[in-house]
Amino acid sequence: MTADPRFFDLITPSLLLDEAKMMRNIDRLADHAQGLGVSLRPHLKTAKSVDVARRLLPAGDGPATVSTLAEAETFSTAGVRDILYAVGIAPQKLPRVVALRASGCDLSVILDNVVQAEEVAKASREAGVPIPVLIEIDCDGHRGGLRPDDPLLINIGRILHQGGAELRGVMTHAGESYTVVGNEAHAKFAEIERAAAVDAAKALRAADLPCPVVSVGSTPTAHAARDLTGVTELRAGVYVFFDLVMAGIGVCQKEDIALSVLTTVIGHQTDRDWTMVDAGWMAMSRDRGTADQAVDQGYGVVCDEAGTILPDLILSSANQEHGIITRRSGATSPMPDLPVGTRLRILPNHACATAAQHSHFTVIPAEPYSALIEWPRFGGW
Amino acid sequence: MTADPRFFDLITPSLLLDEAKMMRNIDRLADHAQGLGVSLRPHLKTAKSVDVARRLLPAGDGPATVSTLAEAETFSTAGVRDILYAVGIAPQKLPRVVALRASGCDLSVILDNVVQAEEVAKASREAGVPIPVLIEIDCDGHRGGLRPDDPLLINIGRILHQGGAELRGVMTHAGESYTVVGNEAHAKFAEIERAAAVDAAKALRAADLPCPVVSVGSTPTAHAARDLTGVTELRAGVYVFFDLVMAGIGVCQKEDIALSVLTTVIGHQTDRDWTMVDAGWMAMSRDRGTADQAVDQGYGVVCDEAGTILPDLILSSANQEHGIITRRSGATSPMPDLPVGTRLRILPNHACATAAQHSHFTVIPAEPYSALIEWPRFGGW
Repeated sequence: MTADPRFFDLITPSLLLDEAKMMRNIDRLADHAQGLGVSLRPHLKTAKSVDVARRLLPAGDGPATVSTLAEAETFSTAGVRDILYAVGIAPQKLPRVVALRASGCDLSVILDNVVQAEEVAKASREAGVPIPVLIEIDCDGHRGGLRPDDPLLINIGRILHQGGAELRGVMTHAGESYTVVGNEAHAKFAEIERAAAVDAAKALRAADLPCPVVSVGSTPTAHAARDLTGVTELRAGVYVFFDLVMAGIGVCQKEDIALSVLTTVIGHQTDRDWTMVDAGWMAMSRDRGTADQAVDQGYGVVCDEAGTILPDLILSSANQEHGIITRRSGATSPMPDLPVGTRLRILPNHACATAAQHSHFTVIPAEPYSALIEWPRFGGW
Repeated sequence: MTADPRFFDLITPSLLLDEAKMMRNIDRLADHAQGLGVSLRPHLKTAKSVDVARRLLPAGDGPATVSTLAEAETFSTAGVRDILYAVGIAPQKLPRVVALRASGCDLSVILDNVVQAEEVAKASREAGVPIPVLIEIDCDGHRGGLRPDDPLLINIGRILHQGGAELRGVMTHAGESYTVVGNEAHAKFAEIERAAAVDAAKALRAADLPCPVVSVGSTPTAHAARDLTGVTELRAGVYVFFDLVMAGIGVCQKEDIALSVLTTVIGHQTDRDWTMVDAGWMAMSRDRGTADQAVDQGYGVVCDEAGTILPDLILSSANQEHGIITRRSGATSPMPDLPVGTRLRILPNHACATAAQHSHFTVIPAEPYSALIEWPRFGGW
């Protein structure tokens, strides 16, 4: 492999982003959503980057999903004006929601219980501004939300609608779709999402409550959905970069993964067939999302500096700033020669978790041989 | 429990640091090292905070250990002048090492192979400044380093000593001490560290090579060491805060843990006995270091807002910004009433990993009822 001169001065570990792969991933889901006749509301929690958001949101100002109010505030300042904050609202956070709405951002929140509904209604009345709400629906027992036939759904709808908030609709997320493999299995979860959300919307409407928005999605179900009748919008996040967890359940190929960590070989323990690198869990995250999959990728799949996968090599263990590369058990290919100073790339298990360990992306532009670019990331709450 | 008014305006999740507990942990190991007659060189990678470093380093200017050159640069700027960079040096990083030394910081590096030794010698000659080196010794097969009887040790020593670098000594770290429980077992690993480092030092000296520094340590062995004859300095890091992994192997009590994550209850799934909070893995990290211990603490142990442990409650699963609190399996105590809006604290599995997810500590000062203080943290490489 020939060393890429653009990497000479890069500090390792560094988070690399392949812009061409990212753009293909973005276009793939945008096309699919268009074919299904639904709006796409990308989740910005994976990238936490204004530069990536500009490429994810062709209209520039939304719609978008976020996982923290810090994201809502940063993206709103950058011009995103239609944002769903998709974590159940803590009452203490309502002043920030009101402030964001007052600044001109159409921020909506989610909730699934009476205390939250009463607090949102109260905050709406006190601010004189109806806070828009999607009621969270539980479609697969994964996390929060109400079952579509739970009588509480109507109670909460009334508290919001009659109490001064804006009942904007329902939303659900089939987190369990990550645990099954293949398009057919993901399509079934897409239908589970659709059915739960549409049933909840029907229940609200039957009680004379408004429900204009019916929002569903996860990266596996969004790509596999075949019919979204009754759904108005689709949400997904990790698809912008993809990762080994998504490759492991068949949503993408490993070659589609746009994110990797550049690292340098710092030593060997030859009797143990170990190659030591300067990317440990601080650079990769502690995420072991492939541990329960058919192929356990350790802390990541090893590529050469150009991004070509090296057969059977994984980052099999990680300390804070040390990684140990070994051959996968049962590997037949010989250990390649990787002298001290060699640069390698590691594909991550989980793009959201790995990206969160870094302050910026080092972008390899889609245009061949162009200079690397830095795109800042942010964190916090 | 009475709500602490100092927490009213805190965003959740927030990283809390109990200063009184931290100072007790700092004093405990400082006293032990003094009793053993060795110098203590605290590892600053856990805190990555100048404010914490000031409390860890009574003399202010060192000695200290770091895991990245970004730490070396930041702490050097803050006045720490004696720093060991304890990750095998990548040749590409030597210009930054030379620059740091030129700025007046006595930065030393570690290595365990001929390529690194030749590169360090070359960089020393080119800069006209001998770069000080500790040769890394492998005492327990955990990671990098040379066995004390490996003939390469002398070769590398000669390359450094005759090539223009400064052969300052040897260092080792018994990472395997984390896998055994109790003071007796840790004391055995402390002796394994001591014996390996002292043997390596003897081998170098027998070959007429200098070896003034003999450096050993890990948090478990540092606390358990009974006799460090021949050792000149002790290193440890996580002891400043402690965590559930250290409690699980008996180095501390859970009540000694100085770090916790403040979180807010956002909902319940009563049929599953779940309490949902706004601290997921982004706030806790993906570290599951207690998974292999006798007691698996999930993503952390749940305390009330004041920091008192709630019996049998753990953060049993985590998504990016959602945590699910459940009772430990086999728990007999009833699920306490934790209404939406309740503030709780979660003790972390691994202080280094959890702290790394946050931009600052919110410090609860040792002085009762004093106002909270913010201490910034930093990251990167």
